[in-house]
Amino acid sequence: MNTTTSALAALTECIAPQLAAVDKLFGQELRSDLDCVNVLVKHVSRFRGKMLRPCLVLLSGKAAGAKELTDAHVTIATVVEMVHMATLVHDDVLDEAELRRKGATINHLRGNEAAVLLGDFLISHSYHLCSSLGSQYASRLIARTTNVVCEGELLQIDNRNNLQLSEDVYFDIIARKTASLCGACCRLGAHLSGASDEVAARFETFGVALGVAFQIQDDILDLVGDVSTVGKTLGIDVEKGKLTLPIIHFLKTAPREHRLLLLSLLESREPDKGEKIRNLIAPSGSIQYARDAARAQVDRARSAIAELPASEARTALDTMAEFVITRPM
Amino acid sequence: MNTTTSALAALTECIAPQLAAVDKLFGQELRSDLDCVNVLVKHVSRFRGKMLRPCLVLLSGKAAGAKELTDAHVTIATVVEMVHMATLVHDDVLDEAELRRKGATINHLRGNEAAVLLGDFLISHSYHLCSSLGSQYASRLIARTTNVVCEGELLQIDNRNNLQLSEDVYFDIIARKTASLCGACCRLGAHLSGASDEVAARFETFGVALGVAFQIQDDILDLVGDVSTVGKTLGIDVEKGKLTLPIIHFLKTAPREHRLLLLSLLESREPDKGEKIRNLIAPSGSIQYARDAARAQVDRARSAIAELPASEARTALDTMAEFVITRPM
Repeated sequence: MNTTTSALAALTECIAPQLAAVDKLFGQELRSDLDCVNVLVKHVSRFRGKMLRPCLVLLSGKAAGAKELTDAHVTIATVVEMVHMATLVHDDVLDEAELRRKGATINHLRGNEAAVLLGDFLISHSYHLCSSLGSQYASRLIARTTNVVCEGELLQIDNRNNLQLSEDVYFDIIARKTASLCGACCRLGAHLSGASDEVAARFETFGVALGVAFQIQDDILDLVGDVSTVGKTLGIDVEKGKLTLPIIHFLKTAPREHRLLLLSLLESREPDKGEKIRNLIAPSGSIQYARDAARAQVDRARSAIAELPASEARTALDTMAEFVITRPM
Repeated sequence: MNTTTSALAALTECIAPQLAAVDKLFGQELRSDLDCVNVLVKHVSRFRGKMLRPCLVLLSGKAAGAKELTDAHVTIATVVEMVHMATLVHDDVLDEAELRRKGATINHLRGNEAAVLLGDFLISHSYHLCSSLGSQYASRLIARTTNVVCEGELLQIDNRNNLQLSEDVYFDIIARKTASLCGACCRLGAHLSGASDEVAARFETFGVALGVAFQIQDDILDLVGDVSTVGKTLGIDVEKGKLTLPIIHFLKTAPREHRLLLLSLLESREPDKGEKIRNLIAPSGSIQYARDAARAQVDRARSAIAELPASEARTALDTMAEFVITRPM
């Protein structure tokens, strides 16, 4: 994991000052005159992760040709991190996960009510910050994207325990709930650097494909990852009746008795069914199938920006796309 | 209740076409290409209430001198209704209320997860609609207001079961969680009609005071209202350890043995404690004390706009302020 962290640090070196500015703005924007709010916000700040989405904004801004990133880039990078944090906090209500990024989750510490409100507080501040920019372009795109993210989450709930879930619907769910925000990050970064609509669209394609790959990898890790490395509760997907790509593939392709066994495990209430499902699927070809699908998305992402002028930032985006499917966390 | 409804209809007659347009825009904006989203949204639309907040936007717009209300007035009136609906849906998660406006609540029907996401969907669409306007003025004010609303809700949770809650903190809570949005409605309505900042500020004062009065009346009804008239679960406040003005006053002024009885009831887990608390407080002067406080806010609201030119809309605002503290629902 140290290797991973230092690899990430190396590739974001060219945006280090802006990432520090994002950190600062994040704290400033959320400060309240109420102690009880600050205590909760302080707690959520400890969950801050890899800053993938701010990196996408800033690196896209650089790769699109900005000599110097602007304050608006930093603002939008902060906005997308807040949107992401809000979805994490509300996901914790949704998932009843007891661990998130190796810290206790907000809902576990303070109840569902505080988690709902803290998520609302984060999303509300993200819009507030966004509306501080001169034009409505980013406000519109961020709001439209959060609409789509909610739709993705609702579609996912609607398909809970749907053992017939198709690959198409799975991809529709993750395109909306995860990839749309990554796409918006890249588009906005490029747009703020003065990129044409055609170029901004390439960046968006890059972000969307990277986001799909990211979610497939997340789903693989939830199934076969190592809890101490990943740093959050695993096996949540099957617990909650959420079918992911390896499982969908397995149910379509595995020998009949294996499929029946998986179906009965998915429907059972055994406490250790996650472990049994892992043991059933791990040796099959279904994990590799999902890895190949993620690989294809990374290739799609990279080719979307391949014809742009070479730069340190473009290389960093390529590396980041590779990192998304090789990360153990 | 029929008398109430027709009185309301009469005072909003001058904005009837715009209210119809709000209804239409509300439905249009929330339409999704996903059936599962439309089913949920359709359900929440049935909860739509008195449209108090859209009325505040539209009547303030008229009273501030607009000959004709604009599309922007209708847009903002729709935005504030969506914000309000989002807080209702998330409040249902918070309160575990089983009834809301005489319909089953979303969380009861579909689980907390769907309620959280539907609230997010509504708030996200409210920002989306807001960002469709030409200027960022409304986006900024709406986002700042939703920050304050969240703070009010968090402050309320932080004071749950605080039997020493002071009147000052009670008023701080309701100013943030309820009155701030009403104030923003009136300010935005006036601003969109070209009102000066000074005049817009008067409208905001009107809305804030009306909102405080509204919340005090809500709290009184929760304590001593009639469930079949009010149309939602009552006694929620004491169940959830939420001290409201009559209770705060009673704990400060009632004879010692009555105070001790109330404290022990508040701390007890008896299923019918709400009924006992109601019987203890109803004959005391504490309900009247709260009614007087609400009355004072209505007077403050009306005097804030008293010097504006007389108009049908200004009269309607006055009537609406009176309605807020006389309504049985």
